[in-house]
Amino acid sequence: MYFVTVRDHIMIAHSLRGDVFGPAQRVHGATYVVDAEFRCASLDANNIVIDIGFAATSLKQALEPLNYNNLDALPQFAGSVTTTEFLARYIHGQVAAKVAGAFAGSLKVTLLESHVAAAGYEAPVSPRAG
Amino acid sequence: MYFVTVRDHIMIAHSLRGDVFGPAQRVHGATYVVDAEFRCASLDANNIVIDIGFAATSLKQALEPLNYNNLDALPQFAGSVTTTEFLARYIHGQVAAKVAGAFAGSLKVTLLESHVAAAGYEAPVSPRAG
Amino acid sequence: MYFVTVRDHIMIAHSLRGDVFGPAQRVHGATYVVDAEFRCASLDANNIVIDIGFAATSLKQALEPLNYNNLDALPQFAGSVTTTEFLARYIHGQVAAKVAGAFAGSLKVTLLESHVAAAGYEAPVSPRAG
Amino acid sequence: MYFVTVRDHIMIAHSLRGDVFGPAQRVHGATYVVDAEFRCASLDANNIVIDIGFAATSLKQALEPLNYNNLDALPQFAGSVTTTEFLARYIHGQVAAKVAGAFAGSLKVTLLESHVAAAGYEAPVSPRAG
Amino acid sequence: MYFVTVRDHIMIAHSLRGDVFGPAQRVHGATYVVDAEFRCASLDANNIVIDIGFAATSLKQALEPLNYNNLDALPQFAGSVTTTEFLARYIHGQVAAKVAGAFAGSLKVTLLESHVAAAGYEAPVSPRAG
Amino acid sequence: MYFVTVRDHIMIAHSLRGDVFGPAQRVHGATYVVDAEFRCASLDANNIVIDIGFAATSLKQALEPLNYNNLDALPQFAGSVTTTEFLARYIHGQVAAKVAGAFAGSLKVTLLESHVAAAGYEAPVSPRAG
Repeated sequence: MYFVTVRDHIMIAHSLRGDVFGPAQRVHGATYVVDAEFRCASLDANNIVIDIGFAATSLKQALEPLNYNNLDALPQFAGSVTTTEFLARYIHGQVAAKVAGAFAGSLKVTLLESHVAAAGYEAPVSPRAG
Repeated sequence: MYFVTVRDHIMIAHSLRGDVFGPAQRVHGATYVVDAEFRCASLDANNIVIDIGFAATSLKQALEPLNYNNLDALPQFAGSVTTTEFLARYIHGQVAAKVAGAFAGSLKVTLLESHVAAAGYEAPVSPRAG
Repeated sequence: MYFVTVRDHIMIAHSLRGDVFGPAQRVHGATYVVDAEFRCASLDANNIVIDIGFAATSLKQALEPLNYNNLDALPQFAGSVTTTEFLARYIHGQVAAKVAGAFAGSLKVTLLESHVAAAGYEAPVSPRAG
Repeated sequence: MYFVTVRDHIMIAHSLRGDVFGPAQRVHGATYVVDAEFRCASLDANNIVIDIGFAATSLKQALEPLNYNNLDALPQFAGSVTTTEFLARYIHGQVAAKVAGAFAGSLKVTLLESHVAAAGYEAPVSPRAG
Repeated sequence: MYFVTVRDHIMIAHSLRGDVFGPAQRVHGATYVVDAEFRCASLDANNIVIDIGFAATSLKQALEPLNYNNLDALPQFAGSVTTTEFLARYIHGQVAAKVAGAFAGSLKVTLLESHVAAAGYEAPVSPRAG
Repeated sequence: MYFVTVRDHIMIAHSLRGDVFGPAQRVHGATYVVDAEFRCASLDANNIVIDIGFAATSLKQALEPLNYNNLDALPQFAGSVTTTEFLARYIHGQVAAKVAGAFAGSLKVTLLESHVAAAGYEAPVSPRAG
């Protein structure tokens, strides 16, 4: 199994509905340092898993609509509790859509939210049907 | 697969019986920076793998009896060679016991012992039988 | 010169007034991983710069009123542009107040806002007059 | 599953043939911080996955022939495009050969090439046939 | 004293003339993760040391002519031994030129060349004369 | 001002006499990741602050007598409270002695004891009198 990882970050505000979140029910924020790991069984003719520049650009484009925003005000998250786990899956879907057609394998998205906590989501990415 | 990771640390002394350990047969010590990663296939109604505050508290409570101790003198380790691998499994069991009933999935415990070495243990955690 | 550093973090929302801030004029957020470094010329009778537990508690107490808040809504920041530099100085003042009487020397507060950016403030801390 | 990780590094020059590599087609270089993770299902009589000193020495010996070299000039890479993924697999093979007979399990080799990019290779390592 | 730090990186090849460099006399390479720290006594009307976007762009532009190159072949380094210390000072000069007119204070440039070694250069930056 | 930093580590046991140390009065231990930063105003004829290999070896030799030991049992620490600050100064002296004659400038020794705490000592190093 081969893998390639690229890193970027976003700075967002949000609030989390639900007693379990305690003080995080208030509007607060986070820097998420985001790692996208692309994993597959074999290399292409260029000896790569995925063009690392394309991977980095895809991650940046997937993050762009969220960066410097209050997630509570974004339509795509209306009615959702935007936990780190939930956001990891959302970003996973956005990155998967960007790389569809260029990558088939497993994608792991990790959101590091501080020096002591992280969350993520990992699932296969299918090549886009023609 | 979703996952959440929390980090804490302990500072312990111990000695390792066995020629393979060379100078580590002497009483020495370590800071173990400990990562506990909780992994499961779906989120609960709050969009979380596990309450991150509860996860952090469970890890801290699991580490507490070891912290600032000489493991050679603790009854739970009598007759055991307390390698990093062994301790990772021991801590895995202690964390698993704390979260039983609140988490079912896979738990990975990693002990970072310096900037150049780490060890860990990963295994499923079953919910406590009723 | 001796020094001791402790680390903690906060997760806040805010917005920054001023064209220079571009998209950061919107409500967004940040995790600030905060380092407080205490520096002085000599050790006390216990061979320490400052009790590290007291230093960590002082930092945590200084951060507590900010943690999980929208700084735009806090009275102590009314009319202020809460840049990372500004916040570093504010936190410096709060930590200095907590340790006054127990520490005299220089205090450096660093706010790491992502894996690629940080800001801070450094200044002498005077012991509280009797 | 138990695991042990050791870290070392190399500093190499190379160039990458292929339009996809853009400016990396020029002779440039990299520091690769290399992690070797050894993973197996049970511990030996000493409560270890592998002697960590032996693991570190094996990694260092595997890296030695590459360190401080221009990979374009090394015979073992003639005709190969030495991407990070390719090098991870090459180093995996070299480490596997060093530890054969002393370790059976899975080996993951990760090359961190900057603070924002990494690549690696993971595969089972078979004990050397007698 | 206030300070702001931004991080970027370059991947270069070079060789070092002189017996003291041992195997580094061969053509090899390095990833330099580069930190530029801007330090001054007071904030401007926007509560900042320097526009962090401008600082990041200035660093990137300063690094661009070196990135993905063999320093041995660049005219600006003809006859020079391009040690990490030397490069830190060179990059310091390039960044200083980019920010002249927008920043007056002290600039520290640090090149992290692996997980165990770094070098840098620190000196005042004067505003450009009119 | 130029600077060069090298990193190594030790794993030690000790206990700290004094009520202020709470549970750290018990025999426990630490991994100290040790950074030695050499700082001076000008480079030598080889464009270096200090031969980085010599710096790394000097640090390793300075740490060797402490590594894998219980500091409570070492004669050089009899009657001393071996806090991190105290050890930073001790190691500073040992490194200074190793590099005397080859380096004149300022030396900073930092001991990182966990992901949330560090301590250190910084002072000029004089060249050995002839």
